[in-house]
Amino acid sequence: MLDKKVGKQTRRLHNPPVITATASIVGPKEGKGPLAAHFDLTVDDELWGEKTWEKAESKFVKETYAKILSNASLAANGVDYIIAGDLLNQSIASTFGLRDSGVPFYGVYGACSTIGESMGLGAMLIDGGFASNVVCITSSHFCSAEKQFRFPLELGSQRAPTSQWTVTGSAGVLLSAEGTGPFITKITTGKVVDLGIKDQNNMGAAMAPAAADTIYAHFEDTGLPHDYYDMVITGDLGSIGLEILDDLLSSNDIRIGKVLNDGGVMIFDKKQDVHAGGSGCCCCASVLAGYLYDSLKKGKLRKILLVPTGALLSPTSVQQGESIPCVAHAIVIENVIGG
Amino acid sequence: MLDKKVGKQTRRLHNPPVITATASIVGPKEGKGPLAAHFDLTVDDELWGEKTWEKAESKFVKETYAKILSNASLAANGVDYIIAGDLLNQSIASTFGLRDSGVPFYGVYGACSTIGESMGLGAMLIDGGFASNVVCITSSHFCSAEKQFRFPLELGSQRAPTSQWTVTGSAGVLLSAEGTGPFITKITTGKVVDLGIKDQNNMGAAMAPAAADTIYAHFEDTGLPHDYYDMVITGDLGSIGLEILDDLLSSNDIRIGKVLNDGGVMIFDKKQDVHAGGSGCCCCASVLAGYLYDSLKKGKLRKILLVPTGALLSPTSVQQGESIPCVAHAIVIENVIGG
Repeated sequence: MLDKKVGKQTRRLHNPPVITATASIVGPKEGKGPLAAHFDLTVDDELWGEKTWEKAESKFVKETYAKILSNASLAANGVDYIIAGDLLNQSIASTFGLRDSGVPFYGVYGACSTIGESMGLGAMLIDGGFASNVVCITSSHFCSAEKQFRFPLELGSQRAPTSQWTVTGSAGVLLSAEGTGPFITKITTGKVVDLGIKDQNNMGAAMAPAAADTIYAHFEDTGLPHDYYDMVITGDLGSIGLEILDDLLSSNDIRIGKVLNDGGVMIFDKKQDVHAGGSGCCCCASVLAGYLYDSLKKGKLRKILLVPTGALLSPTSVQQGESIPCVAHAIVIENVIGG
Repeated sequence: MLDKKVGKQTRRLHNPPVITATASIVGPKEGKGPLAAHFDLTVDDELWGEKTWEKAESKFVKETYAKILSNASLAANGVDYIIAGDLLNQSIASTFGLRDSGVPFYGVYGACSTIGESMGLGAMLIDGGFASNVVCITSSHFCSAEKQFRFPLELGSQRAPTSQWTVTGSAGVLLSAEGTGPFITKITTGKVVDLGIKDQNNMGAAMAPAAADTIYAHFEDTGLPHDYYDMVITGDLGSIGLEILDDLLSSNDIRIGKVLNDGGVMIFDKKQDVHAGGSGCCCCASVLAGYLYDSLKKGKLRKILLVPTGALLSPTSVQQGESIPCVAHAIVIENVIGG
C-alpha cells in the first residue's frame, strides 16, 4: 500500500479520480474580466436579492452546488460527501448554503487554499474506496470579506497598492471514481509556512513562501522535470506575490518560466483597478472551474499543477501583532493518466 | 472496493486504524472536575504566561501536540498529516499552535464535532494507504470563546440556565496504521441538520437533532442492536441536550438506556456551577483522550460510539436572525476488531 506515498508530502492516486463536472457563479466585476466566458452564471447584483452580504454569499454556494449537480446530471442522493469551506467566521457561507443538501458534510478551513485542500481530501476518499462522488466547493465575497477583515465599505477607505480584490462568487467541482478525465493523478499537501510577514495588505508576499515550499516539495518528491506541466497556477498570490514566488523558486534552481501563472493575476484585467489582483477562496476555484477546466476538456491544456495558497490569519491575530502563517496544497490534473 | 460503504453514511475500515496515543492539557476548572486524574497536565493559569487568551489557546495546542508525540515516542518527521481545527475565527489556535510542526496540515471546521471530523478523515487516509500516522487535535478556551461568541468577561454578564461552559484546553489523538488497539472500526459521517432553533444560549437543544440523526443513521446503516455499545457518548449536548436526544431517539424506537452519556455532562461536577454542562471542541476531545481512552486501554470499556456534535453558527448569523445548523460525526472505537 505504501507506494501511494511519493516522498514526504506527495501522494499518487492509484485509480485517479475524475473531475466530472464543475460550476462557477460570480459577481458583476468578475463577469467583466477576461475569463467571463467560462463562468456558468454572472449575477449583476452583489446582494443577489438577499438582505445581507453573508446571506448572499450563502446563496452563491447553494446555487453553485445545484449547478454542479445539474451539469453532472447527478441526483442529490448520488453525492457521498460534500467538502466545503470559506473565509467567513465559522464558515457560515458553506454551512448555511449547504444545510438543505442532505449529504454527509465535512467543513474545512484553508483560506484561499480551500479548494486545494478539499480536492486533495476528496481525491483520497475516492481512491481509498470510501466514496464514488465528492463535491468540493468554496466561496468568497468582496463585501463580506472587506467588512470582516478590513474596513466597512461605507468608510470608503483607500486601498494599499499591494492589496488584492476578493472575488465574489462560488465555485466547485464534482470528483468521481469513474469518467473520461481530466484526472487528479497526484497531490502534494502543504505544511504551514510563516516567514514573519506581518502586513495584512500584502498577502502576496506572505503567501509566496508557502507556495514555493509546496512546489519545491512536489518536484523533490516526484523527480519530475521542472518543465513537465503546461501550466503551474498558484492562487491567489496576485502580481506582487507571483514575482516573489518566481524569485524564490529560481533561488532553489526551479525555473518554471512563462507557464507559471496565478489565479489572482488571471481573473481580472489590470484596467479593472484591482491593484495587485484577485484573491479569496473563489478566485482560484473559479479559474479552475471555468477557464482551466474548459481548456483541459478541449485539450488546450493537457497537464497542470494547481497550487491554491491560503493566508491563515485573522483580524485578531493581526491586532495582537502576529505574523501571517500560510499554506499551499498542490493538485496535479492531467488529461491522460501519466507521470 | 465498494464494500467499505455500509449504507449511505457509514464506512467500514478494512484495516482499522489504531489510536496509539492521546494527550490532553486542560485549565484549572477542568482540573477540579471528576475526570481530572485522566488528563496529562492541568495548568493553573488560564493565560499560561501568555498575553492574550488566543495566544494561550495556541500554546495549549502546541504543548498538547508535543505531548502526543512524546506519549507515542514518535519523532516529528514520523507524522504524515495533522488534521486540526478550533472555534476561533479562522481557526488561529490551531494554525498558530502548529505552525512550527513542519508536517502537512489540513484545517477543519466542525465546532464541537471537530475531533469526530478529524478522526473520521484521518482514519480514512490511513485505511486508504495514504498515511501511517495522523495527528487529530483540537482546542477551546472559555475566555476566548466567551469574548468571541458572547460577552466580554469583564462585563460579568449573568449566564442563562441553559448555557454551557466552554472547556479550556487542547486534546488530540495519534492514529496509526499499526498497533494493538483500540481500533477505529467504522465511521458515520453526519449531514447538516437545522430544525430551526435560534437560541444561542441553548446549544444542547439545537444540537440534539443532529446527534439523533447521525446515531439513527449509524444503526440503520449497520443493523447493529441498539445495545451493542458499552457506551454511546455525544459531545457536547450538556444535560438539557442529552435529555432531548434521549427523547428523539426513543421516538424513533432507539433505546440506548443508561449507557447514553455526553462529554459535557461527564467533564464537570454539578457543583462546579456550569449550568447545563461543558462544551467546546476540547470537551469531547479531552474526555476521549483521557477517561475514555484509559478505560478502553484497561478493558473497562470494550466498544464505544463517540458522537462529537457541533453547532455551526457564528455571532453574525445569530445577529441576522438565522437558526443554528448542526452536525455530528460518529466514530466506532473497539478493543477488538469486531462488528
